Amino acid sequence: MKGRILSGMRPTGKLHLGHLVGALDNWIKLQDEYDCLFMVADWHAFMSEYENTSELAENIIDNVADWLSVGIDPKRSTIFVQSHVAEHTQLHMIFSCITPLGILERCPTYKEQMREINTRNLNTYGFLGYPVLQASDILLYKANKVPVGQDQLPHLELTREISRLFNNLAKREVFPSPDAILTQSPKLLGLDGRKMSKSYLNTINLSDAPDEIVRKISTMFTDPQRIKLSDNGHPDICNVFSYYTTFAPELKNEIFDGCSNARFGCTECKKRLAQRIIEKISPFQKKRTELLKDKTVISKILEEGREKASFLAIETMRQVRKAVNL
Amino acid sequence: MKGRILSGMRPTGKLHLGHLVGALDNWIKLQDEYDCLFMVADWHAFMSEYENTSELAENIIDNVADWLSVGIDPKRSTIFVQSHVAEHTQLHMIFSCITPLGILERCPTYKEQMREINTRNLNTYGFLGYPVLQASDILLYKANKVPVGQDQLPHLELTREISRLFNNLAKREVFPSPDAILTQSPKLLGLDGRKMSKSYLNTINLSDAPDEIVRKISTMFTDPQRIKLSDNGHPDICNVFSYYTTFAPELKNEIFDGCSNARFGCTECKKRLAQRIIEKISPFQKKRTELLKDKTVISKILEEGREKASFLAIETMRQVRKAVNL
Repeated sequence: MKGRILSGMRPTGKLHLGHLVGALDNWIKLQDEYDCLFMVADWHAFMSEYENTSELAENIIDNVADWLSVGIDPKRSTIFVQSHVAEHTQLHMIFSCITPLGILERCPTYKEQMREINTRNLNTYGFLGYPVLQASDILLYKANKVPVGQDQLPHLELTREISRLFNNLAKREVFPSPDAILTQSPKLLGLDGRKMSKSYLNTINLSDAPDEIVRKISTMFTDPQRIKLSDNGHPDICNVFSYYTTFAPELKNEIFDGCSNARFGCTECKKRLAQRIIEKISPFQKKRTELLKDKTVISKILEEGREKASFLAIETMRQVRKAVNL
Repeated sequence: MKGRILSGMRPTGKLHLGHLVGALDNWIKLQDEYDCLFMVADWHAFMSEYENTSELAENIIDNVADWLSVGIDPKRSTIFVQSHVAEHTQLHMIFSCITPLGILERCPTYKEQMREINTRNLNTYGFLGYPVLQASDILLYKANKVPVGQDQLPHLELTREISRLFNNLAKREVFPSPDAILTQSPKLLGLDGRKMSKSYLNTINLSDAPDEIVRKISTMFTDPQRIKLSDNGHPDICNVFSYYTTFAPELKNEIFDGCSNARFGCTECKKRLAQRIIEKISPFQKKRTELLKDKTVISKILEEGREKASFLAIETMRQVRKAVNL
C-alpha cells in the first residue's frame, strides 16, 4: 500500500522562490510515490496572523493557483483548505484534552518564536497549541509520512507523542506514528542574504513579472570585496552564485570560472541569472494566468478536495469518537 | 425582546438533589422569562474525565431524562448536546487564537482546581482552555444572560473579556457582553456534611429508589452532642434540619421545636424527611421511567435541539467568519 503524506502551507502572502525550492519541488516529486494531501493551513495562518486577516481569502486562491501551476496535480493529490473540513477543530479539541501542557511549553520552536517574533502578539492560548493542531492535521488523515525540514522535527515528535497518548487511552491503535521525510532542499536566501521571507521584503515571488525579477535581482548583495570590474570575484561567498547552483546548475562551472577570473561583472552575471529564472518560471506564470481567468476552476478543485479529505476525516472521527465514547 | 440564556451541565454521572436545588429548580423558573438553551456539556466532561469515558453516552441520556422529568420543557427551551453542534469547536479555535495565555493561567478557578484535584491528571493543554470553551458556548448563541454561582463569576468575566477582544478585532459588535444571573439557591450538603458530589459518594440521586433514599438518609450525620433520645437537639447545626428547610419548609418550625425539646429522636426525624423527599421526587421518577421506556423519545428531543441550536450557531459563525475573513 502507498504511504500517505500530509503537508501544508499557511496562506499568509504570495509564494516565492523559497517555497518553490524548499517545498513545492519536493511535493511534486512526492506525488509519484505517495497518496498526497496538500492543505491550505488557514487555521494556522489565523493563529499567527489573527490581527491582520484582510488578505486571507485572496491568499488562499493565489497560493493554490501557484501550487497548480508548478505541477501539483489535483487528479492525483487532494488539495483542500483546512477550515473547510470541520473535523480538524474537533480532533484538535480531543487532542488538546490529552496533551500535557508541559510538552507544549517546552517545545523548542515555541520558545524560539516567543523570543524572536516581536511584530505580532503571539502570547495567546491558541499559539501555544500550534503543534496540537498540526498533530490533528496529520493524524486526521492517518498520514504516515510527513515532509519536514530539520527545524520542524520537534513538532513531528509531538505528533508522535500525541498519537501514542491517544492510542494508550483508547487501548487500540487508532493512529499511526508518522515518520519524517527530511527535505534535503538547499536553503534559498533572500535578496539581502537573510532567510527569504515576506516579512523581510526580500523575496522573488512566483507571480513577479519579468521586469520585476530583473529589477529585484539587480539589487542582490554580491561579493563585497569585488569593487572594480577587474577585481576577481569570490563566488563561494556570493548569494547570486548560490542562486545559479539552484536555478541553473548547468551554468555553474562557467559562472564560477568567469567570476573568479573577472571575465564579466556582477551586472552581467545578474542579468543572466534573471533571464534563467524568468525562463524557469514563465511556464508556471502562463498556467497561473490561465487558471485565474475563471476563478470557479480553483473553487471547484478545492470543493473536490474538501470532499475527498472529508471522506477520510469523517471515517477517522467515527473511529475516534467510538474509541473515547464521545 | 426576551433575553437569551445558555446554561449547561457536564454528563459525568447521575444527577442528585444538589443539581435539583442548585440548578434545575432555577432553570425551570428561567424558562418563563427567557429564551433558554440547556446544553449537555460533553466536551467539558471529556476535558476533565478523558481518562474514563465509559459511561459518557449513558450519562447523557440519563441526565436529559432527569431534566425533562423535573420540568425542563423541550417545547419552550432548546435542549442539546454540545458535541452535536460542530460550531462549538470552531468558535473555540478562533477564541483560542485571540485569548492571552496569561488570563487563563491566572484564572482563580483554574489555580484552585490544579491545587485541589489529585485524582485525575488535569495538567493538560485543553483543561487550561476550559473558560475559552465556556465563552464559545455562551457567545455562539449570543446569550446575554448566564445563570452562575458566585464561584463561576471569574469564568463569566473571561467570557466578557473574550467578547471584547473579538469585537475589537472585528471592529464591530458581533458579540454581546453577557450578564450573570446569580443563583441564590441554598448550598445543599451531602450525607456526610461535605459538598454533595458524586466523587464523595454522599449524594441522593434523583433516580434513587424510595428504600435507597430511606437508607441513605438514615446514615446522615446529625447533631453530635445529642447522644440519648432525651438530650435536646441543636437543629441549627444539623444537616438533616437544613434539608427540611429546603425540601419541607412547611415542617420547619415543628421540627425545630420538636428536636430542640427532645420530643422525637433523630431516627423518626430522618424517616419523616425521607418520606417528604420521596413524595417530592416520585412524580419526577414516574415521568423519568415513562421517558426511558422508549429511548427514541429523548434522541428525538436532542435531535430537535441540535437543529434549533445549529440554526443559531451557523448564523453566528457566518458573522464571525466574515468579521475575521476566514
